[in-house]
Formats: sequence, C-alpha cells, structure tokens
Amino acid sequence: MLTIGVDIGGTSVRAAVVDPDGSIMAEVRAAPTPDRAAALDDVVAELVDGLAARHPVQAVGLAVAGFVDPDRRTVAFGAHVPWRDDHVVDRLTERLGLPVVLEHDANAAGLAEHRVGAAAGASVAVLVALGTGIGAALLVDGAVFRGAYGVAPELGHLTVVRGGRPCPCGKRGCLERYCSGTALGRAAEELIATSEEFSLLRATWERAEPVTGRDVAHAAEAGDGLARRVVEEFAEWLGQGLALVADVFDPDVVVIGGEVSASASLYLDGARRRYAEEVTGGGHRRLAEIRPAVLGGHAGMVGAALDARERAGV
Amino acid sequence: MLTIGVDIGGTSVRAAVVDPDGSIMAEVRAAPTPDRAAALDDVVAELVDGLAARHPVQAVGLAVAGFVDPDRRTVAFGAHVPWRDDHVVDRLTERLGLPVVLEHDANAAGLAEHRVGAAAGASVAVLVALGTGIGAALLVDGAVFRGAYGVAPELGHLTVVRGGRPCPCGKRGCLERYCSGTALGRAAEELIATSEEFSLLRATWERAEPVTGRDVAHAAEAGDGLARRVVEEFAEWLGQGLALVADVFDPDVVVIGGEVSASASLYLDGARRRYAEEVTGGGHRRLAEIRPAVLGGHAGMVGAALDARERAGV
Amino acid sequence: MLTIGVDIGGTSVRAAVVDPDGSIMAEVRAAPTPDRAAALDDVVAELVDGLAARHPVQAVGLAVAGFVDPDRRTVAFGAHVPWRDDHVVDRLTERLGLPVVLEHDANAAGLAEHRVGAAAGASVAVLVALGTGIGAALLVDGAVFRGAYGVAPELGHLTVVRGGRPCPCGKRGCLERYCSGTALGRAAEELIATSEEFSLLRATWERAEPVTGRDVAHAAEAGDGLARRVVEEFAEWLGQGLALVADVFDPDVVVIGGEVSASASLYLDGARRRYAEEVTGGGHRRLAEIRPAVLGGHAGMVGAALDARERAGV
Amino acid sequence: MLTIGVDIGGTSVRAAVVDPDGSIMAEVRAAPTPDRAAALDDVVAELVDGLAARHPVQAVGLAVAGFVDPDRRTVAFGAHVPWRDDHVVDRLTERLGLPVVLEHDANAAGLAEHRVGAAAGASVAVLVALGTGIGAALLVDGAVFRGAYGVAPELGHLTVVRGGRPCPCGKRGCLERYCSGTALGRAAEELIATSEEFSLLRATWERAEPVTGRDVAHAAEAGDGLARRVVEEFAEWLGQGLALVADVFDPDVVVIGGEVSASASLYLDGARRRYAEEVTGGGHRRLAEIRPAVLGGHAGMVGAALDARERAGV
Repeated sequence: MLTIGVDIGGTSVRAAVVDPDGSIMAEVRAAPTPDRAAALDDVVAELVDGLAARHPVQAVGLAVAGFVDPDRRTVAFGAHVPWRDDHVVDRLTERLGLPVVLEHDANAAGLAEHRVGAAAGASVAVLVALGTGIGAALLVDGAVFRGAYGVAPELGHLTVVRGGRPCPCGKRGCLERYCSGTALGRAAEELIATSEEFSLLRATWERAEPVTGRDVAHAAEAGDGLARRVVEEFAEWLGQGLALVADVFDPDVVVIGGEVSASASLYLDGARRRYAEEVTGGGHRRLAEIRPAVLGGHAGMVGAALDARERAGV
Repeated sequence: MLTIGVDIGGTSVRAAVVDPDGSIMAEVRAAPTPDRAAALDDVVAELVDGLAARHPVQAVGLAVAGFVDPDRRTVAFGAHVPWRDDHVVDRLTERLGLPVVLEHDANAAGLAEHRVGAAAGASVAVLVALGTGIGAALLVDGAVFRGAYGVAPELGHLTVVRGGRPCPCGKRGCLERYCSGTALGRAAEELIATSEEFSLLRATWERAEPVTGRDVAHAAEAGDGLARRVVEEFAEWLGQGLALVADVFDPDVVVIGGEVSASASLYLDGARRRYAEEVTGGGHRRLAEIRPAVLGGHAGMVGAALDARERAGV
Repeated sequence: MLTIGVDIGGTSVRAAVVDPDGSIMAEVRAAPTPDRAAALDDVVAELVDGLAARHPVQAVGLAVAGFVDPDRRTVAFGAHVPWRDDHVVDRLTERLGLPVVLEHDANAAGLAEHRVGAAAGASVAVLVALGTGIGAALLVDGAVFRGAYGVAPELGHLTVVRGGRPCPCGKRGCLERYCSGTALGRAAEELIATSEEFSLLRATWERAEPVTGRDVAHAAEAGDGLARRVVEEFAEWLGQGLALVADVFDPDVVVIGGEVSASASLYLDGARRRYAEEVTGGGHRRLAEIRPAVLGGHAGMVGAALDARERAGV
Repeated sequence: MLTIGVDIGGTSVRAAVVDPDGSIMAEVRAAPTPDRAAALDDVVAELVDGLAARHPVQAVGLAVAGFVDPDRRTVAFGAHVPWRDDHVVDRLTERLGLPVVLEHDANAAGLAEHRVGAAAGASVAVLVALGTGIGAALLVDGAVFRGAYGVAPELGHLTVVRGGRPCPCGKRGCLERYCSGTALGRAAEELIATSEEFSLLRATWERAEPVTGRDVAHAAEAGDGLARRVVEEFAEWLGQGLALVADVFDPDVVVIGGEVSASASLYLDGARRRYAEEVTGGGHRRLAEIRPAVLGGHAGMVGAALDARERAGV
C-alpha cells in the first residue's frame, strides 16, 4: 500500500510515492511554485496524477509552508504560497479522487523523523529545522502538538537580545536572527564587510550575491577561518536554543533539521556543550539526546505521505 | 464525597478538606516544615488524621515543593523538603489508611485553576506562579503535561540576558532574576542602595531585612514612586515571559499565580501590552487570555484534593 | 598675506588659497588620490604651483587623512594615502620652495573651526567629525592636544556594546559602528533588508549600491519614516558620545562636523536631549555647547592654511 | 623648606608635614570629618597649628573630596564635606597665617604620583583611583588639566552597559558600577547571595556588613575561588577602562591608585591583557605603561603639600 506526499514550499512543489517504511519509490518536482491558487491546484494535480498513473496509491498528504487551521482542512496563510483561507482539502479530495490530508511542513517533517527517522521511539520529540528561519514541531506520544490555536510551537521569534538585530517581524533580537541558515549567512557577510580577512566567501559577497547558510557551512568544512568563527558563534546560540527547548518541553529526543543539518558535525559538539551548561539542572536530570535529522530535504514529503496513510486509514 | 489536599511547602505544611467544587470545608496547618523525613510523615499524618476524624474523607492528595518521579509515587528531591528519593505514596497510603496521590505543587495549583479557577474550560492552559522563582504547569485537555522525564515546563532559568545577573543556579541572566517575587524585592533593594530617593521600602532595607515582592507590591499600591518604577520594569519582563509562553505552547489561557498575584492589577496591563508587542504574529492570531489566579495560596491544597478525587476514583 | 591649504583625502586631493580670515580665494582639485608616493608628490606640487603662480602665497599646510608623527614632519601611515613613514615636510619644502607644515586632517579641521568657525573663542574645544568613522580633535587654549604619542583623541573605537556589531578594527561594538555616517547607512540597510516597509532608500539598496549617511539624512529630510527612525537611533548614540566627550574633556564647545553635519538639524535636538541626560552631574555644572560645524568640507584645507600661517610665522 | 598637606575626606581629616622630596616628616589625623563648615575649619586649624608649632612650614595645601572652582579658591560642593560654595582659601589663609592652596583630591594625588611617584617624568599622565567610585586626574607636561569648567576628567559615570546596573547618579550601567572598589564588593555580595559556594567573604555578608573591595582583594589573595572570579571580571572592566583612557588621552603613563591598588598584582596582568586587546590600533602604536600607584593612601596629602610648595612659591 502506497501513499503520496506533496511538499509545497516557497520555491518548488515536490511529490513522492512513499511506502509504509518511509522509502521513496518515485519523486517528481515542479518549479517555481505558482503564485495563483488555481495554478497551484493544477501543479499539484498534475504531479499527483502522474505518479498515481504509475503507482497504486491510496491517499495524498500535503505538507505546506504555511499556517494550517486547527481542523486541518484549510490553509490560512503562507508567505510564499498563494492559498489564503483556502479549503484545499475538500477541493483537492474531489479533484484528485483520493483522500487528502493537510499538515504544516515542520509538523510533517517532525512526524517523518518520529516514524522512520532520528526521533523513532521518542516519547516527547522536538524537531528544530534551521533554514530561512526556525521551524519547529513537537510530538507527544507520536501525536503532533498544535496548541489551542494551531500555531505551537514557535521558536524563531523569541527575544534573546533586547535591542538586538532587527527582524523582518518588526521586533529586535529574535532567536532566528542568531540561529538559522540565514543568520549564518548574515553573520558571515557582516564579518566580511568589516574586515579584510581572507575568506572563501568573499567572492560571493563581492558579486553582491547573498551568502547562504550552506555556503558558510561548506567554507567552514574547507577550513575557512572566518566561516569557522561564524559557525562557532552559531553553535553557542543553537546550544542556548536547545536548552530552552529542553526546559519548556522536556523531550527525550531533539532532531536538528533544515538547510544546514547536513553539516551538523561542524557545530553539534559545540552546541551540545553549551546546551549542557545552559539547561536547567543539567547535572541532575536526564537530558534529551540531540540528533541530526536523517531524512534531510525529503522529510516534508515523507511525513505528509505517512500522515495520509495514518489519517486516511489506508 | 470529600478529599483532603496537603500542601507541603518549604516553610509550612497545610491540609484542607475539599468538596467536589473545590470549596474548602476545613483547614489546618503546622509550621515549620520538619527537616527530617520521619518527622514530616508524622506531621502529615497528624494533620490528615485530625481532619479525617471529623470529615468523611475518601482520599488524600499531596502537593510537594519538589521534583516528583514520573510514576508519581516518589519524591525525588525538594530544596526545602526532607523527603529524598522517598516512596512516600506507598508508605503514607499504608499509614493513613486512605488512597494517597502525589503531585508537584505547581502542577497541583495548575490543576486547581483548571478545574475550579481561572483556567476553567481551557484547552491548553498554562499556570505561571511568581514567587521565590517561577513555577509553571501546562495542562493539555485537562491533563498535566510532564515531558519525557517529568520536569516540563521549566521557565525560570531560561537565559534572557547574556552575562546578566548571577543566579543561584550558577548561570547568569535567568528569567527569574528579572521576573519573580524575589526579583521584585532585589530590584527595589538595588535602587534603594544606589539612590537617596524617598521610599516606603527604605526602612525595611535599613533594618537589613530582605524586601519581598509583596512589600514592593504593597508600596506600589500606596503610591511609592520607587516601587512603582520597579513594578513597571517587572511588568515588561513578565510581558516578555508571557510572549514566550504563548509562542512555545500556544495556550488559550495563561493564569498568573504566586506570591504577587494578589496585586496583579498593578502590573497586568503593562505586562499584557508588552506581551501583545512581543508575541509572534501578534496581530494575526488568536491570543491566549492572561488572567490572575483565583485560588491564591490555596491552589496547591485544592489541586491536590481534586487530583486525589480524580485519580483515586472516589 | 595668503597661504595654501592642501587636503589629502582617500578619494581626492584639494588645495585652496586662504586669506587670514579663513576665506577661500581659489580652489583646485585632483582625483583620484594617486596610490604611489611619488605620484602624490607630483599632484600636490602641480596643484600648489598652479595656485602659487596666480596668488602671492607664503606657506603651505598639508592636512592628511593619516597618522602624523609627533614632530609633524613625517606621515606615518594612512589607510588610503601612499605616504608611509615618509618625510614629506622636508621633501616638499624643497620641491615647492615654500615653508610646508603638516597636520592630521581632523586636527586641521578642528583648528579651522576654532580660528574662524563654530568653536571661535572656546577655551577647550572638541571637534567630532562623523563620516566613514569618527574623527576627533581637541584644542586647549587654541593649541592642538596630541597626547604623548600623537594619536589622541581617538573616539571611534571605544567599546559601547560588549559583543556588539563587528568592526573592521577586529573588535565588536565600537562607537563608530553606531554613530557615524557609515553607521547611518548600515542601520538603514539592515532595516530595509529585514522589512518590507516602504522607503525612499530601498531603490538604492536594490541596486546593490551602498546606502550612505548622506542618503539617509536626505531621505529623513524628505519625511521617509524608516530613515527618520534610523536617524533617531543615531541621535541617541551621538548624545551618548557627546556625554562621554563632555565627561573626559569638559569642553566649552563641541563642534559636530563631517559628512552628515549639513543635516544636523535632523538629529541635533535629539542628541542634545540624550547628552543632557547622560552627562555626569548634568543639572549641576556648566555644559559644553554643541554646535554644527560651519566650514563643512572645507575645514581641512582652511585649517591647514591657517596652521601654515601660524607656524611658518608668515 | 617644608609644607603641610591636608587631605579632607569623607571619613577623616589627615595632615602631614612633607619635605621637597615628598617624604612625610610627621602626620596627624582627626575623625570623623565634622559635618558643619565652622567645625571643619577648627579641625583643619588645630591639625595645622599643631604641626606648624613643631616644624618650620611655609605653606599649606588642601586636598578636598569635592568640586573645586576653576579659580581654586572656593570649594563648590562635596558629597561628604560641609563646605559649600565656600571661599576657604581666603578664610584659612588669614586664620592660619600661611599661604593656602586648594585642589581636588584626585588632582592632588595625580600631582603627587607625577612629582615623586609612579608617573615621574611622564609627558601625559593619568591617575585612575579606584575606591568608592572612580577618581581621575590628567597631567599634561606636569600641569593638571581641568577642562573648561573644572570638572575634567570624569570617568566613573561613562555608560558602558545600556540598561545595566542602577547607579546612585540616577543612570544605569556606569563604569564605576563595574570597575571600582565598591563594584568589587557588590559583585562579591551578589555571587554570595545567589550561590551556596564556600567563600571567606560569606561571614561578613551574613553579619549584614558591606563587603569592601579590600575584603575581596584580601580573600582573592588567600585563594578564595569566588573572590578570584570577581577579581577576574573586575580586571576585564579595568582593561576596558584603561583602553578608553589610552584612546582619549594617549598618555605615556597611567597610574592605578585608590583603595584596591595595594593588591594590583592580583588583577593588573588581566587588565593589561584586555587593555592591549581593546585599545585602538594596539599593535601599531606606542602604548601607555600601566603602573600601580606608589604613594598609596598618602598621595592626597603629599600632592597637596607639593602643590602648596609650587604655587606658593616657597
């Protein structure tokens, strides 16, 4: 029995046929993500129909980069997705002729890591996805925790430095200004702009192209001194963020995902060290294990497909 | 049908007979809290036996200022309670001849506020108790959330100022150094020591007695300028703390309890203003209501008694 | 009797014939500043010879953007000037056939403002020049104060935020990262990059051109909301900087010069307000007046010419 | 030829007969400092008359813990001295029958260290006296620099942490809240109050007596761990303060005096390390030497006596 997972992100739409173990049997993709709702419907239908024509699939899960209403039938809003207050589950169920379920992308990724990834077997699992910002999911006894209004947990805009770096959200000093893929890039740019130190990243900056978190991670892996310092500082903030997660949720497993998780070996030891210093009662309680994600960029699709399997009862 | 709730704190042991609506029928107290485990057993037994002799009680709940093991039969540790890794449930069940249940005091207070207090009907409720430090409880669909190892949620030692005020926990800049009853007192003392400004609190300070959060609240109510400034700053920090709570848990109700909650009118508007500015997506989501506790200092006893009723199945 | 002042900056070399009142009779300019020492000599000689051919001049003053040895005969180093440990006074005196004197450019500008500008008559005058960084000069009873080794006063790299913005100097949190023309531009860029707020400055930023302090000042004058907020924050830092200047030097006049001084009306009231709050014993002492510079971009040339007149004894 | 120096502090009045080399021939003292002006006159007269009866003295210098008018004939104000806008020079000259000169105590101490102490021969000397607060004096070519209104240099209330520790001056984050004898004591008290760590200082604190900077220094010398950490942090701030002094004044010698200078070996290396990191252009310029004071608590008296010798022309 197979299901399809569709990951609807800001830059592309990806779909995969997934088996019960979370393995991907086939994968397709369309880019860019359309900027009108009807066109996005068309792209989803085209990808799903194409896969369904060649595989015996029984349900479809959608992982969307946006707010999903608590009833999980409606997309409320996503900065880079054209569906707004849109009853996509009903409409696509009819159009695709298959049961459709809907989930926020971080929740889908968290679910995937819990079912077949780094958080398998965890009683209280937290996914921390470091990319443009910070995405997060909390799973308690395997069920996604959503809070009273569907937005928990939100970690990226916790104030960690009063009067600190300005944030697109309008505040200053938000955690994701210090601890995200974007923050890695910005911190590197700031050091490049204010020093004449050699760095592999300088060429990118001089072309006026944004330095990405992945660029910084790769440069650090190649031994670049400036990039390494940036990564060390990032590790300190990540450790502080992990301590916060451990204090408020007391999980047994925290999974680090997102854009820079492939390079986790660069910063995970540093982050764990700070985490152990920062977490309340560090020496006197059992602490969550911190693990890098294993599903990488496929976590959203796989989670959506597994969610469809579970909820559609197939 | 009645049950007894016992609140075992650092300074006194209190017990009350509580009816199904959370009303207190009778209350007794012993002080100070004994500093040996056997003596504490004796005090609990004496208080419970006295009440049980005059009221038809069917179960006993203990609310303890200390860590309770996840199985809730054992007190692991409490800074001011002599039970250490102590199987108190089994022992006291036998001694008292009544079913005994055990709970962390913040959880008991949160449960009481949810059943018969300020959080009645809440889907996701958080209690924030501001006293010596910050106590917290999270109730999801009425059930206490404990995390994987029984310590969630812990809010008092989140780092909010890097390199900030030293904390007994060994770190610096913990939230409870800025936002607790103790913090109110310390901030007032610091201003008194470094100014010659008139303040009602100066006499206390000159006697080398600690200024308590309650002292500061009373002085502010009496119009004391220095105390009012301290309370305003406290309100800012409380607002930031509430925004954190709203972001990570997305509750529908947050209850402010503890030592200074009786004076909540002094700071709650200020805290709500900062909370609304700080919470992520403030203008675009439904926000938890912030309410002062209604059970005051009885919340622990009432919660323990109601917990006993529910769990003992009486 | 006339003298010539030459201002040797990082981007251009300018020379003017100046009368005893500081009025400019003729001005010439060459750009860019040559990047070899001999070529710079040639440019200076060409400009001076051209002016001297048409005006009866008796001495030449050089104002250089760089460190000048305490004996004022040698340029030690300037980031954008090719003379290094170069005995320029002796060499140019011989080549030009006129007495030559040498001064650091901020000192020359300070001297000009003292003799014929905003600091006329001051007993202790400080010039604070806000451009790429912060230049400063201190004049006591009309004489330039140089310190023991010729580098006083240096204000730009005082640490005002521990762990703050990185600085090209290798440290973090230096005053000129918050209070300079450059800082104005950077702060504006940071807000533009992290918001979608309308701003007149956004077009410049989208062309990947640096936003200058002057751009920000012009936009603020045109009513741009984002630019005005940046200028307000700048004014706070300037006020703190002025309080520092008043505390350490106790001047009777502080002159604000440099790139953004033409727009001083935008921020001077705000800066004065913060200054009055910050300065030690603000209500109990006479305070330095804060005045905008009157000589603008000519201050270096005028000061060098007046210095030549005074020191060459003509 | 001998002169008398009188040091009028907040707790005592001390007077000494001093020879031309700065050596003390005789010393007397009265305590406490009277709190009425006439009584203070009497005490000064009694001490001076007593010494003058036994030694051939020719002039008297007064070093006062307070603001001295620029004409140096009048004491404007001192927090713990009863003379207010008081023409003490004229009055005491007449009463004592000897020439009297007046100086601010930090200036007198700086003058003493320059003439016969640690700053002998310095071209630009700065005294930084760390006691209750921070006292400072600047001597240029041996002459005291006073600024335009007589209050320069003032270092203690420079803002170094925005929103930091409250200060009696009404601001927050002033340097002397982090770097003074008082700051040493307060930082120790804060750590003691918030930890259960062993410390030699705990007994003092438990008696509700203030912990002094000297107490902390002595405990650190005895190997006390808590005191050592406090001293290390103090050294960091002192290094930052010294870098500021070097940047704004560019001295060749800085002398560290005041209450805790006797223990300078504890923190001077740490402070020098931070100073060298913080000072602008640290690797590229000659740096002031940092030296502990040699005159200790006698500097005020000796400086006043030498000042009297120089100014009275005896």
